Amino acid sequence: MKKVLFLSILVLVFAFSTGAWAGTGKDKCISCHQSVTPGVVAQWHNSAHSGAGVLCFSCHEADRDDPSGRNHNGFLITPIVTPKHCQGCHPQQVKEFRESMHDEAALFSLSSFEVVSGKEVEDNVTLGQTKNYKAQFSRESAEAGCLDCHGTVIEVAKDGTLVNWPNVGIGRMNPDGSVGSCSACHTRHSFSIAQARKPETCGQCHLGPDHPQREIYEESKHGNLVSANGDSFNWDDKNWGPEDIEAPTCATCHMSGFGGATKTTHNVSARLKWELEPMFSWPADAKYERGGEKYPIAAEIGARYEKIHNLPAGSLDSVGTGGPNPFAIAKDSAPEIYDRYVGPGKWWSKGDTRLDSFGGDALRSPDEKREDMIAVCTQCHVRSWAEGDLNKADATIDTYNAVALAIKKKYYDPIKAEKLDADIKFNGQSRVDTLWHEVWHHEGRIWRMGAFMQGQDWQHWQGAYEVADDGAEMADWLVNLRLRKMTREKLEKE
Amino acid sequence: MKKVLFLSILVLVFAFSTGAWAGTGKDKCISCHQSVTPGVVAQWHNSAHSGAGVLCFSCHEADRDDPSGRNHNGFLITPIVTPKHCQGCHPQQVKEFRESMHDEAALFSLSSFEVVSGKEVEDNVTLGQTKNYKAQFSRESAEAGCLDCHGTVIEVAKDGTLVNWPNVGIGRMNPDGSVGSCSACHTRHSFSIAQARKPETCGQCHLGPDHPQREIYEESKHGNLVSANGDSFNWDDKNWGPEDIEAPTCATCHMSGFGGATKTTHNVSARLKWELEPMFSWPADAKYERGGEKYPIAAEIGARYEKIHNLPAGSLDSVGTGGPNPFAIAKDSAPEIYDRYVGPGKWWSKGDTRLDSFGGDALRSPDEKREDMIAVCTQCHVRSWAEGDLNKADATIDTYNAVALAIKKKYYDPIKAEKLDADIKFNGQSRVDTLWHEVWHHEGRIWRMGAFMQGQDWQHWQGAYEVADDGAEMADWLVNLRLRKMTREKLEKE
Amino acid sequence: MKKVLFLSILVLVFAFSTGAWAGTGKDKCISCHQSVTPGVVAQWHNSAHSGAGVLCFSCHEADRDDPSGRNHNGFLITPIVTPKHCQGCHPQQVKEFRESMHDEAALFSLSSFEVVSGKEVEDNVTLGQTKNYKAQFSRESAEAGCLDCHGTVIEVAKDGTLVNWPNVGIGRMNPDGSVGSCSACHTRHSFSIAQARKPETCGQCHLGPDHPQREIYEESKHGNLVSANGDSFNWDDKNWGPEDIEAPTCATCHMSGFGGATKTTHNVSARLKWELEPMFSWPADAKYERGGEKYPIAAEIGARYEKIHNLPAGSLDSVGTGGPNPFAIAKDSAPEIYDRYVGPGKWWSKGDTRLDSFGGDALRSPDEKREDMIAVCTQCHVRSWAEGDLNKADATIDTYNAVALAIKKKYYDPIKAEKLDADIKFNGQSRVDTLWHEVWHHEGRIWRMGAFMQGQDWQHWQGAYEVADDGAEMADWLVNLRLRKMTREKLEKE
Repeated sequence: MKKVLFLSILVLVFAFSTGAWAGTGKDKCISCHQSVTPGVVAQWHNSAHSGAGVLCFSCHEADRDDPSGRNHNGFLITPIVTPKHCQGCHPQQVKEFRESMHDEAALFSLSSFEVVSGKEVEDNVTLGQTKNYKAQFSRESAEAGCLDCHGTVIEVAKDGTLVNWPNVGIGRMNPDGSVGSCSACHTRHSFSIAQARKPETCGQCHLGPDHPQREIYEESKHGNLVSANGDSFNWDDKNWGPEDIEAPTCATCHMSGFGGATKTTHNVSARLKWELEPMFSWPADAKYERGGEKYPIAAEIGARYEKIHNLPAGSLDSVGTGGPNPFAIAKDSAPEIYDRYVGPGKWWSKGDTRLDSFGGDALRSPDEKREDMIAVCTQCHVRSWAEGDLNKADATIDTYNAVALAIKKKYYDPIKAEKLDADIKFNGQSRVDTLWHEVWHHEGRIWRMGAFMQGQDWQHWQGAYEVADDGAEMADWLVNLRLRKMTREKLEKE
Repeated sequence: MKKVLFLSILVLVFAFSTGAWAGTGKDKCISCHQSVTPGVVAQWHNSAHSGAGVLCFSCHEADRDDPSGRNHNGFLITPIVTPKHCQGCHPQQVKEFRESMHDEAALFSLSSFEVVSGKEVEDNVTLGQTKNYKAQFSRESAEAGCLDCHGTVIEVAKDGTLVNWPNVGIGRMNPDGSVGSCSACHTRHSFSIAQARKPETCGQCHLGPDHPQREIYEESKHGNLVSANGDSFNWDDKNWGPEDIEAPTCATCHMSGFGGATKTTHNVSARLKWELEPMFSWPADAKYERGGEKYPIAAEIGARYEKIHNLPAGSLDSVGTGGPNPFAIAKDSAPEIYDRYVGPGKWWSKGDTRLDSFGGDALRSPDEKREDMIAVCTQCHVRSWAEGDLNKADATIDTYNAVALAIKKKYYDPIKAEKLDADIKFNGQSRVDTLWHEVWHHEGRIWRMGAFMQGQDWQHWQGAYEVADDGAEMADWLVNLRLRKMTREKLEKE
Repeated sequence: MKKVLFLSILVLVFAFSTGAWAGTGKDKCISCHQSVTPGVVAQWHNSAHSGAGVLCFSCHEADRDDPSGRNHNGFLITPIVTPKHCQGCHPQQVKEFRESMHDEAALFSLSSFEVVSGKEVEDNVTLGQTKNYKAQFSRESAEAGCLDCHGTVIEVAKDGTLVNWPNVGIGRMNPDGSVGSCSACHTRHSFSIAQARKPETCGQCHLGPDHPQREIYEESKHGNLVSANGDSFNWDDKNWGPEDIEAPTCATCHMSGFGGATKTTHNVSARLKWELEPMFSWPADAKYERGGEKYPIAAEIGARYEKIHNLPAGSLDSVGTGGPNPFAIAKDSAPEIYDRYVGPGKWWSKGDTRLDSFGGDALRSPDEKREDMIAVCTQCHVRSWAEGDLNKADATIDTYNAVALAIKKKYYDPIKAEKLDADIKFNGQSRVDTLWHEVWHHEGRIWRMGAFMQGQDWQHWQGAYEVADDGAEMADWLVNLRLRKMTREKLEKE
């Protein structure tokens, strides 16, 4: 019955719509694609775009100087719809996106530059602070893995073929000089606001051992309510508020104005007080982001772990800050691509520091960002509840920093300094390297993210517990490798 | 459309309700919180409580001697609604809850006592039989991890501030002398029966490597049907039966009367034949729960694994039983808290054995508990099917007990007895310790729980297979550590 | 309201139906089971079977020579409904199923033969090419694990009791001489087409560390859309097409005609270009399936990894093909069961090669199978998009083959040849064995499957990254075990 009604409406909409297209001559797209790719046409018919008269050519029309443009049955079209197209109707959203870290996603994967510049990924990739990624991550593997989320650099071959295509990674670097792919979240061709708001959408990329935000959220009470009762939520209300949904999704807390509590934003970096992804954590403040500045560990906590691990006083007083500067790496490894996107009048006007693509609310102080988040919380929780919960999470930061730093200083650094793992490497890295990498990049992130998103089992058993287990494994490596060295020296002499 | 209808009803309900409140003077809560925390008010409007005239103050009114009570705009309220409040209207449910293991959840986390008593968790925690938990589980980490599910001990500071708050852990120890938090499952403020019945609700705490009941259920045919067809189920019928749902959820099998098949209960321990969580498994019978009694391994199976692992005859004839007594540990580590909750007229009238909080149907014989479960199964399956499936699971118990005991006796015990891991500890435990811990606490539980809940891939690949893999790793540790010792002795002499 | 309507319809249907049954005398089943197993009856009432006059006895009537037949209140019935029953109304579906690999599922688990023949699983099982499965997989454990998906061999004891029952594994070997269990996917007793099409249904067996197709799909954009918007899909339309669903499920791509794009099939092997599950991958072509033939690694990629791992030129030029022949193993280990199902006029007319149960579209060339898949893709994607995405995945095959072969040749093979792990085995296998097993059977499959199903995080972090990590662990084992041997030789001499 529902189906019949839906189909009837579809037919009516179609009848009226084709009338409108007839005047523009652009109905040709539909009439042909209805049989060539009927799924796309059905999705579009169902979309707000369709109702608003946004036709195929409204978005797929290529600029005359877009290298990806091609004549398609008399129309100059491009298959690659970019933020340059979207901003025609959605300028504020694209502006905010450009000011967020999402816009730097391909830059941060770095390997995209290598891939495009023809260098082998396994020879060149330097990802993160550890140069740990020299393993088996070939171009072939990187394309189906990393770059599916981070975005590729799309090149246009001489014959018009698109290289590193298809791709809808959020930081995709487009032939028209823009960066980004709105359809990473706003899935073509229905572009449903409801779908973009659901946790599965963010969870396409934010999941897995390196950043299981999806899994953590699913464990939380918020995720429980959305999963159990979401069918009755009002997902489509453009300005949704606490009367529309019983519990928030990713989009609610990180992006939504939520019934006027704050302003809606596409800058996903705007409400994040902490850097939870790097080797150590620090407040998301320019002075730390640029690096060079130490971030202190609370004296009581540092002292506690110095005692536990028998480290000299002061060993655990602070952590280093600042990530790698992806602009600098790009400039060095693939200057011709760097030049295409960075410079006066280009997508990024400058690329001297890692903050150069950030802007707007992402540059507020950590406390202002926190306050913005609390504005959403307090639509359903009293302020003391929201603050209490966030304070509890804040308190895990120093503990994580101290424990991870203890593992590094007491075990990992000596192993590397004494070159004890020199003969057990596989394509450039030993199990000791991957173990340290997992301490911060996998279990350490889970510990920190789990605390902030109410994923208690993840926080503890896949986070804190696993870091401690890694610590035990690392303690054994140091003892074991030193004994091996001594054994070899003594017995091989004989 | 639905939304409009919903809003209209909301307006009507509101109009009538405010009339009712006007007489009591308690509408003041709503009129203010409508703007302060509109989400809470919207949820309440949508709840059965709202229809039944249960207002904010009905639950949030504090007893005069409740330390968490405070004057809030002229009302003596508490933010902490406890089973003492709920039992006014739901006495049977609270009684059953008190007789179940759920009510002991904070006791079983133990660390809550340490946290509150100001001792550092990492100095004191003794959780389970192995004293294995001395790692990096600081108070900060325990709060965002363990205690989010188990519950904190909430203290009231001299200035009225609540310590270890917010928390909705199921075994929360409340300032009013009660234990428990009904809203762990019946999420405030809509308290929807449908939501409480869905698997995601139990799955908030029952998931992850230590007890993945949620993941196992999702794999099962039962979970498959609920996930695929659940939209058409009748989730709200108070006395749901087999005509309402095509497949059961956690609540159906463990709590529901299911159309009169048995009696509905909030005692989640009432239908459990086996203890599946401890180091070894035994029938959930008082004689084993108290410990001291051995539980036999079937002779054929014990002999099989004695032969495989080259162990003396009789080595694998039985396992020890009985868990730690959380009351005793509480009494020892935090006597002032123990006294608050245990004693004549208090929440627990005595605390001499680990069974002292159990009661009612949790104290039936294992076979009676099984029979109660089968009453639910046979609403959809013939008895021989239900029995056949449970017998299949029963049969894995002896195999698990034998294999885990073999690992312990042949490898783990000798390593500990010879102190071979003394120099590879990280904060008090070695990788050998965490490995043994994972044998029973992670993969061994998955093996056992997977078998009982039709999660075949979990049972095998994340359970039985991983236990065997751990066994292989443990076999190597013994050989490796003995060789290290010999090497050190011989070479360091020189 | 919906419920009331539903119940009214139920009552009406029941009224009419009982009229119909009255004439056949078969309403006796319902009238009794309505109280004995009301859930089953409610499900059936809700089914298409009920509307079409398919009654209990229509399916549960036993052939006179079916050993599982028994007199049940005057009717000769069997509890085991098999493909022989289903093909009466669904001959094409059963034919296609018989031509697919699904029909060989129990054969491929092999252990079913052992279980039934009374041999201990741990003494006999040879699964895959590695003889790696000698661990703790007892009969008890295999029944609740492996065989729940693969299917048991059901025997009828002299007293009529069914052994290895209940079971609905897809390759179940039935007493009536047939193989298969349609209700593995078409869950009894509603047999809903919607449910069979949902990803959770395939995901009951296709999940977990050994083949996480479910988890990979959930990560993909396809899974995202189904999870977020699936409520609005038209799941019931028998001939569903791109206007019914916004994104495909497992069934869409692997089985559906999808609006006439291709022909619908129950042969799930019909559209698979590659073998992604064995130790190494090759095109799903008879010449490779039979084994003996080498499958080449692209010269550029082989050379790249020879250089990285310092292996002689040509070491990584090709991989072996062909899996074990389950028929041969069955014939050898359980001839009496083999004879029951294989031979002229039996379920499988011959059993000389591993392909003997395959047929129809499963025997097309790899390119024809790919083309069939692309026909589905192009209902929503242009051909260049679909091809581009599949080419990207194809490119990972050679990389995986080269890396896995490098690990085997450089590390695993020497360890085994030098018998370096002889003293660290647990029930016949060492951690070195389980590690190599995980390289190809767990992480290597995830790498390959992740690439083909757009599960980028799975492909990379749980696939490619973990294989590299395993490689580093394996590199250490070789160095470590050789040093141990040397140490023992030198020090024990003294």
